[in-house]
Amino acid sequence: MANITKKVSWSSRGDESGAAGEETPLLNGSEQSRPLRQMSSGSTVFQIGRLSTVDLEEEITMEEVKSEIRSPLLFFPFQCLSLPFQDSARGRPKEIPHNEKLLSLKFESLDYDNIENQLFLEEERRMSFMVNAEEWFPLHAWFTSGVAFRCLEISRWVICGLIGFLTGLIACFIDIVVEELAGLKYKLIKENIVKFTEAGGLSISLLLWAALNSFCVMWGAIIVAFIEPVAAGSGIPQIKCFLNGVKVPRVVRLKTLVVKVVGVIFSVVGGLTVGKEGPMIHSGAVLAAGISQGRSTSLKRDFKIFEYFRRDTEKRDFVSAGAAAGVSAAFGAPVGGVLFSLEEGASFWNQLLTWRIFFASMISTFTLNFFLSIYHNKPGDLSNPGLLNFGRFESEAIEYNLYEIPLFIAMGAIGGVLGAFFNFLNYWLTIFRIRYVHRPCLQVMEAMLVAAVTATVAFIMIYFSTDCQPLRPDHSEEYPLQLFCADGEYNSMATTFLNTPERSVRSFFHNPTGTYNALTLGLFTLTYFFLACWTYGLAVSAGVFIPSLLIGAAWGRLCGILLASTTSTASMWADPGKYALIGAAAQLGGIVRMTLSLTVIMMEATGNVTYGLPIMLVLMTAKIVGDYFQEGLYDLHIKLGSVPFLHWEAPATSHWLTAREVMSSPVTCLSRIEKVGTIVDTLSNTSTNHNGFPVVVQVSGDDEPAKLCGLILRSQLIVLLKHKVFVELARSRLSQRKLQLKDFRDAYPRFPPIQSIHVSQDERECMMDLTEFMNPTPYTDTSLPRVFKLFRALGLRHLVVVDDDNRVVGLVTRKDLARYHMGKHGLEELQLAQT
Amino acid sequence: MANITKKVSWSSRGDESGAAGEETPLLNGSEQSRPLRQMSSGSTVFQIGRLSTVDLEEEITMEEVKSEIRSPLLFFPFQCLSLPFQDSARGRPKEIPHNEKLLSLKFESLDYDNIENQLFLEEERRMSFMVNAEEWFPLHAWFTSGVAFRCLEISRWVICGLIGFLTGLIACFIDIVVEELAGLKYKLIKENIVKFTEAGGLSISLLLWAALNSFCVMWGAIIVAFIEPVAAGSGIPQIKCFLNGVKVPRVVRLKTLVVKVVGVIFSVVGGLTVGKEGPMIHSGAVLAAGISQGRSTSLKRDFKIFEYFRRDTEKRDFVSAGAAAGVSAAFGAPVGGVLFSLEEGASFWNQLLTWRIFFASMISTFTLNFFLSIYHNKPGDLSNPGLLNFGRFESEAIEYNLYEIPLFIAMGAIGGVLGAFFNFLNYWLTIFRIRYVHRPCLQVMEAMLVAAVTATVAFIMIYFSTDCQPLRPDHSEEYPLQLFCADGEYNSMATTFLNTPERSVRSFFHNPTGTYNALTLGLFTLTYFFLACWTYGLAVSAGVFIPSLLIGAAWGRLCGILLASTTSTASMWADPGKYALIGAAAQLGGIVRMTLSLTVIMMEATGNVTYGLPIMLVLMTAKIVGDYFQEGLYDLHIKLGSVPFLHWEAPATSHWLTAREVMSSPVTCLSRIEKVGTIVDTLSNTSTNHNGFPVVVQVSGDDEPAKLCGLILRSQLIVLLKHKVFVELARSRLSQRKLQLKDFRDAYPRFPPIQSIHVSQDERECMMDLTEFMNPTPYTDTSLPRVFKLFRALGLRHLVVVDDDNRVVGLVTRKDLARYHMGKHGLEELQLAQT
Repeated sequence: MANITKKVSWSSRGDESGAAGEETPLLNGSEQSRPLRQMSSGSTVFQIGRLSTVDLEEEITMEEVKSEIRSPLLFFPFQCLSLPFQDSARGRPKEIPHNEKLLSLKFESLDYDNIENQLFLEEERRMSFMVNAEEWFPLHAWFTSGVAFRCLEISRWVICGLIGFLTGLIACFIDIVVEELAGLKYKLIKENIVKFTEAGGLSISLLLWAALNSFCVMWGAIIVAFIEPVAAGSGIPQIKCFLNGVKVPRVVRLKTLVVKVVGVIFSVVGGLTVGKEGPMIHSGAVLAAGISQGRSTSLKRDFKIFEYFRRDTEKRDFVSAGAAAGVSAAFGAPVGGVLFSLEEGASFWNQLLTWRIFFASMISTFTLNFFLSIYHNKPGDLSNPGLLNFGRFESEAIEYNLYEIPLFIAMGAIGGVLGAFFNFLNYWLTIFRIRYVHRPCLQVMEAMLVAAVTATVAFIMIYFSTDCQPLRPDHSEEYPLQLFCADGEYNSMATTFLNTPERSVRSFFHNPTGTYNALTLGLFTLTYFFLACWTYGLAVSAGVFIPSLLIGAAWGRLCGILLASTTSTASMWADPGKYALIGAAAQLGGIVRMTLSLTVIMMEATGNVTYGLPIMLVLMTAKIVGDYFQEGLYDLHIKLGSVPFLHWEAPATSHWLTAREVMSSPVTCLSRIEKVGTIVDTLSNTSTNHNGFPVVVQVSGDDEPAKLCGLILRSQLIVLLKHKVFVELARSRLSQRKLQLKDFRDAYPRFPPIQSIHVSQDERECMMDLTEFMNPTPYTDTSLPRVFKLFRALGLRHLVVVDDDNRVVGLVTRKDLARYHMGKHGLEELQLAQT
Repeated sequence: MANITKKVSWSSRGDESGAAGEETPLLNGSEQSRPLRQMSSGSTVFQIGRLSTVDLEEEITMEEVKSEIRSPLLFFPFQCLSLPFQDSARGRPKEIPHNEKLLSLKFESLDYDNIENQLFLEEERRMSFMVNAEEWFPLHAWFTSGVAFRCLEISRWVICGLIGFLTGLIACFIDIVVEELAGLKYKLIKENIVKFTEAGGLSISLLLWAALNSFCVMWGAIIVAFIEPVAAGSGIPQIKCFLNGVKVPRVVRLKTLVVKVVGVIFSVVGGLTVGKEGPMIHSGAVLAAGISQGRSTSLKRDFKIFEYFRRDTEKRDFVSAGAAAGVSAAFGAPVGGVLFSLEEGASFWNQLLTWRIFFASMISTFTLNFFLSIYHNKPGDLSNPGLLNFGRFESEAIEYNLYEIPLFIAMGAIGGVLGAFFNFLNYWLTIFRIRYVHRPCLQVMEAMLVAAVTATVAFIMIYFSTDCQPLRPDHSEEYPLQLFCADGEYNSMATTFLNTPERSVRSFFHNPTGTYNALTLGLFTLTYFFLACWTYGLAVSAGVFIPSLLIGAAWGRLCGILLASTTSTASMWADPGKYALIGAAAQLGGIVRMTLSLTVIMMEATGNVTYGLPIMLVLMTAKIVGDYFQEGLYDLHIKLGSVPFLHWEAPATSHWLTAREVMSSPVTCLSRIEKVGTIVDTLSNTSTNHNGFPVVVQVSGDDEPAKLCGLILRSQLIVLLKHKVFVELARSRLSQRKLQLKDFRDAYPRFPPIQSIHVSQDERECMMDLTEFMNPTPYTDTSLPRVFKLFRALGLRHLVVVDDDNRVVGLVTRKDLARYHMGKHGLEELQLAQT
């Protein structure tokens, strides 16, 4: 995870614009900015930085200065103390950088709003008019909305089905390979230990174990550190960012997927304290992004299908389906998957989309289930969904009493505190890593070290453990290790360590009372806690779900045992497995702080609705207590990556801030008919590295400011420049084909940088007409679907329509929108009753 | 349901404005509007109607005429044929009114957008600044966001807990009363039948049965028809409308709740083919609306608490929690409840809110569960959630094979066709009812007739049935009726009818193979189908869920039996209960067409994740097939009510419509400082019955059009008039207390009509300053939370900030918003890295 900040956070454009260093003196040289800051009486540093930078090329009108002065409330005490992180990385920093006070400009946004320019509207209209050609078609509702739209809708479903199917297959592949390899490894180690227990010289076993682990982890770390650093960690923070609307570079590429899948196999087999569930979410998302685009830029193959979906809006919808399918495959929780996607990317709740997401989730669980049932020689037995499942709780175990609820809440609080402590440690560890362990070879070495230490600690724990338990007749333990126990007994600690973590979690939940003694559980919790904390953030592909669950299950079971021993009526607290479940929920909730989706995931993994309320209360308590100290682990890592992440709501006390105060100003504007040279200069200028430029039109005379008429994106301008859509050329070459939406789609999503486009000196003098391509942005005279979206998403009641001069032209109300509906003959309009 | 259209759809204001009839000639008199229509070349009838109405009082500028002409694409063939429904109700209509082509103006909208006027901002700021007073308070995240905000947040949780608790209690009350009364009734009838079977003269039993049913139903119908017609039906369409943003009058009042609860008990005990589940959703919603306002207008009690929540935004949030709690209590499906609320009112997906909704759902299930477990003498057994639960499927029953999936899909298609047929019949029946059965006494008589017929049909079916089954040793049948069967046997048909529908559904799912023969099931399906269809829409409070499930379960089980008999390997289709479940899902899906939430509800009621995929596929097929013919039942009834309901997306082919074409124009505007007389006239004028008025300011000279500066609501104006907030009075009486937000809240939601406010002739000459109260509406310079909401809900990337003259002032991007966050010292701002 460390490399989220170091490596990952460079956008592809950011890589090229290395000249940005020039600006730092303006911002960091406190001598220069301080007088300015005084002048504008408490405006923010950033605005001043920008003002003074832009100073060199543009006049600042009195208008802007006034708007600066109009923000008298903005003076923050931390303005002077935050050293940007880049500086501290260069030399030896004097203090720990407060880099949570930074927001990286390296991340671009995804555009979830359709660019409704003329090209787009023309295409939509073309598709609409196919309706009329097919008017005889006796189909209703969305069937009538044009064959083209119907085909699109069917493609969406097909894609979602494919996403689900392939995600399920990948999960299946990971599971089988890990099972086989881990089985092989544990068998080898067990036999070795058994051999040397009798012969003496167990240190050789230790060496073998540590070497095996380090070897596996080495490969996992090498591919991550050297080939694709963005594949490190669980990928959940990155997917959260993506769904939130931040374009994290390279996060949904094929290479990332391959590294992720291979990496997670190595790390789990390498015995790290990690799970294989988190990476499934990332894998599903990558698959979705790949399939929905109908091509792979990495493989240089374009299947010429699904071209309509080559834009941010559609891609993000599919990525959310992929993430849901990943959750669903990982935990056998299709509903939980849907809620996860919704929780993380709420911009797009929409019934049909949600149902598609659900479909992908279902197919994913089903596929995994089906193939695993074949692998386990029980074909058709579909009762074992998910990579991780908590097994079936017995009826007597799932009951709880009203008086246990306060206990559960107390456990939730413990989980919150422990989770916050975990996050706190991991936070400082990550900062340490960002500063000192940023070279790939160091990262590989650290990963190997952790693997060796994990093996050693486990070995020592097993060696000194005296928790001997009688072998059960049904031989349900897979690798019972006798070690120094009497015949017919096995070392309980060894079982816990010599198993995949998934299996250990299940054992904690279901093994009968007395399988573990309190000391074993306590020691296990302690060691596993620190190991897991150290492991998360290594340059390996791995998740934190399972370790959290395991830690929680261990101390939860411990609580259950202690409760049973302190109270006289032991039967009341008969089943420590119940407490293990609650503990697991508490610990996981304390670390990741997910809410609704996690409750549902836990409910579905438990396969029981009865535990819903306790799990919910526990997660809620854990979140509240944890939030008191520290943010959730994923949010911390997002913060460390300086990602411009939009949280759920605006800060509660921000009502006194207006758009005027948060906006960046002045803005680089382009004219509707603009000189090519100006555009090239604007795009090349690193100080105006905006991605969207307002398009304005000069009304009368040069003295009056220009009026807004639209917005154009950097990527659009680049495509226009590439195709040399100049007014002069269009006149001379009449046969030139018109630029189509397809040309923009072909370039999506890797638009070339401006440097790669050659514009001759002659061409610089040409003009470009942006009218056709710009998005007439302010919601004044926009298309019905867009107005509809405004009403639906914001719950509006009135929308005043104004003209260019801000004069009232009309008023749109809900009734104006509800009047239109799809009838048998295309779009129909209802009348308004007059009473 | 019939009276949704007839009775319910009158808004309180609509009742008063009876003068609207004046306008009808303009709209319906085709002689007058036709020339106009020609003139404006294909503009819509409505716009012309309005234009010519407004003509009398305002100049139409060339601007508007141009905008009329600019919409050349709008010509619809049905313009002339749609007779408004009101006309047909008066006289004998010549043809069936196409009243689905109508949209009633009688419904007002809810306002889900906060009115951010100066009063509101001041209050928010006051609450924000409490932070500073408490700066020493070492609390993080939302804890720091002001004590006031923290208290609000806690109140919200408390209210949600209360909503859940009380909804659970009501569900519990209904269940116990129905169980007891129905038990009593069935016992009486059974004994009577047993007596007369031996003695002969069974017609007396029939009379007793029919009389008992009619008597119960009579009371249920009387309270609905005479006291509160909006309580008729399941209430789900009304709640759907409410969550969608339509204010359905009287739908969330206390009286409605009481009538609903008592009514549903009568109708279920009266043996109608109805369920008690649908009304729970409505009950939960009413409870939520009541509790969250901290007062009851009906009881004239104001508890002076939760005053902050007295506005549409907050109320709607709570109502969605109440609806979710209702679903959760009805089906033991807390997650399904949450998804139901989200599906129906998607404007407000928000993590914290969703979690509160989930909390309410959980508490509701838990409460119901807890009290029912005490009632059933099994305290602490929480494994039986919900009024309806499908019971526990045995492990061998829940397995299905891959080759069964096509069969399931085929059953889904059957469900879709049957559902569409059901809806089709019910649609025409409803239209018939609207026209002929609109008087309350007729409605009561119809309900009694249906009750008597239901009893008679059931009796005849039982009488002629020859399906005798051996009594099982465990006596699991509650009312085994021997009738003409041999000793030790019972009449299978009688069991099906002499049970509450919930119990019958469970029997279809779980009774062993051979409990019912094919003929019994076929006849039962047939009769129940038509009875249920006739029943839905009566003036009684009842739901359609259970009848649908029962019909589906019957024919599903029939399918299972037929399959088993046709194939040689009978063991393959061992369990007809599985097919009963699939059939139930198909039938329900075919009728109500709910998607995601219904899948989850069915999954949770089954208590098993394994059936997720088949249920989903079945529901999907049923919806697609059903939509081919007809809309869902709830949507049909919403349509019949002419409600301005916003569906999920704008019609697919509407990209060529712009806001300019859908808006109403010209608009009645008010000046920032307006004469009281003008305001009173505007409000009293029935032709300008808008609820919001743009506030404009005259720039220079009278010839230039005025510029927009805000929006003010009718309700606000009424409060202002009531408190006589006139400029002149403020000057003369300096001591006058300033109008506060509280005054608006106190009047919420039943603002007095304009007629009740007396304004003297002198006062008419006063001026009113609207600046402080209007909502500066166009998103130009708005507060951060609102900009945030725009970005979050619409997934924006750029927001161009313009000034009054539409000149670019600045640009807001995601980074500008992400910079602000809650720190330890209140609002903090992040820096932007320069690389």
